Amino acid sequence: MRIDVLTLFPAMFDGVFSSSILGKARDKGIVSLNTVNFRDYANNKHNTVDDYPYGGGGGMVLKPEPIFSAVEGITEGLTSDRKPRVILMCPQGQNFNQKLAESFAEEEHLIFICGHYEGYDERIREHLVTDELSIGDYVLTGGELPAMVVIDSVVRLLPGVLGNEMSAVTDSFSTGLLEYPHYTRPAKFRDWEVPDVLISGHHKNVDEWRRRQSLMRTWAKRPDLLENVELTPKERKWFDEWRASLESKEAPSADGKN
Amino acid sequence: MRIDVLTLFPAMFDGVFSSSILGKARDKGIVSLNTVNFRDYANNKHNTVDDYPYGGGGGMVLKPEPIFSAVEGITEGLTSDRKPRVILMCPQGQNFNQKLAESFAEEEHLIFICGHYEGYDERIREHLVTDELSIGDYVLTGGELPAMVVIDSVVRLLPGVLGNEMSAVTDSFSTGLLEYPHYTRPAKFRDWEVPDVLISGHHKNVDEWRRRQSLMRTWAKRPDLLENVELTPKERKWFDEWRASLESKEAPSADGKN
Repeated sequence: MRIDVLTLFPAMFDGVFSSSILGKARDKGIVSLNTVNFRDYANNKHNTVDDYPYGGGGGMVLKPEPIFSAVEGITEGLTSDRKPRVILMCPQGQNFNQKLAESFAEEEHLIFICGHYEGYDERIREHLVTDELSIGDYVLTGGELPAMVVIDSVVRLLPGVLGNEMSAVTDSFSTGLLEYPHYTRPAKFRDWEVPDVLISGHHKNVDEWRRRQSLMRTWAKRPDLLENVELTPKERKWFDEWRASLESKEAPSADGKN
Repeated sequence: MRIDVLTLFPAMFDGVFSSSILGKARDKGIVSLNTVNFRDYANNKHNTVDDYPYGGGGGMVLKPEPIFSAVEGITEGLTSDRKPRVILMCPQGQNFNQKLAESFAEEEHLIFICGHYEGYDERIREHLVTDELSIGDYVLTGGELPAMVVIDSVVRLLPGVLGNEMSAVTDSFSTGLLEYPHYTRPAKFRDWEVPDVLISGHHKNVDEWRRRQSLMRTWAKRPDLLENVELTPKERKWFDEWRASLESKEAPSADGKN
């Protein structure tokens, strides 16, 4: 996969693109990660990439030419039949989620456009961009961090990127439930001990404890996720009894303790 | 404000902490941004920070000691009456949003804990952490990028960080509506012209056009946001007529065009 990022702050990407999983994926040749400073395509005397908005008002607006030229500079001469996805990071984009990450992981070439507190000229959106993405309902200073987030979530899905030992970790969103609590050594840290069942060696009891913990947490923190989860009749019986027992008490905590 | 980040990959933060708004806020002395490699607190022969999970299963679990020691190394000797918020980045945390960003911006000291494809020993969560945060429903390789996202959204809110020219930009989430389209020079780029109304000089018409564009976009892309928006009687009349006109056609596009 090839990934190009248009940004006015290419140095922001240095540490992220060369560390950890992204750095390893790059070293293995699974992905090429490039930054393009679209100021290099400004093509005017002062290298201006933004200008005042038509119609007045505060803020600056990113001009169309440098961004069109930068994208066309990347794509010209490419021989692949598949066109790259051109992804605009912006607060009003579609909410990014795991399903979109999986669809991007099928592509050959992604181009990200990162604005930085300016707006984008609408013609970029209408005539150049294939996807508009937002990573959440919070305000950031630019599209750079959101682009890194999307890139990280996509690259980790590419074949050969995650070793078995890592992909074996139960992902919160792949089981449909929140994760159960994890414990490792020491068995007693300060005053706090690991639950007996985990040290018991009874695999069936461990599995049941974990499943119930996952269900309790999901019910407490993200009840919306439970709608898509199927319970066995035994689990259903236990779950209903547990919830009934909570309702007869005052303020259940997130752990189902009082 | 003081911000400390516990991570096994401090180099990931270099570019982000020294560029753009975060770099400027740091240079102005408004925020101090520090990374702490908690492997330095491992206190065992092989500098191990993770171990196998009790009860079996795949994946590794971050041990409690190095993370407790690293946080206590940061907080010991601090004289402030206000305790730092200790924030764990994890997929099952509370969904981060703008309101949480505003509440964090009131604090004096934030400590972020970033795991990296491992799980966390539950005692970290129970006895050390004050907040668990997730930035969205997608799987990432670690908590580093989410921590950067939260830090960026918080630091930009600190007094003196954003210049007037930037804070004047209409934020998508502060008006409650998605932004209207922006245009800047040239008035004609390739075949695509700026809408006449924006060049007309009629401020009232410009304002009305922008407000209507915001309403149309929000209705098309994020109708949930409309619930909290108050319309004038005139706007309500126009909006109802516009939607009725759409319903009599086939497939309205995001721009309200067919």
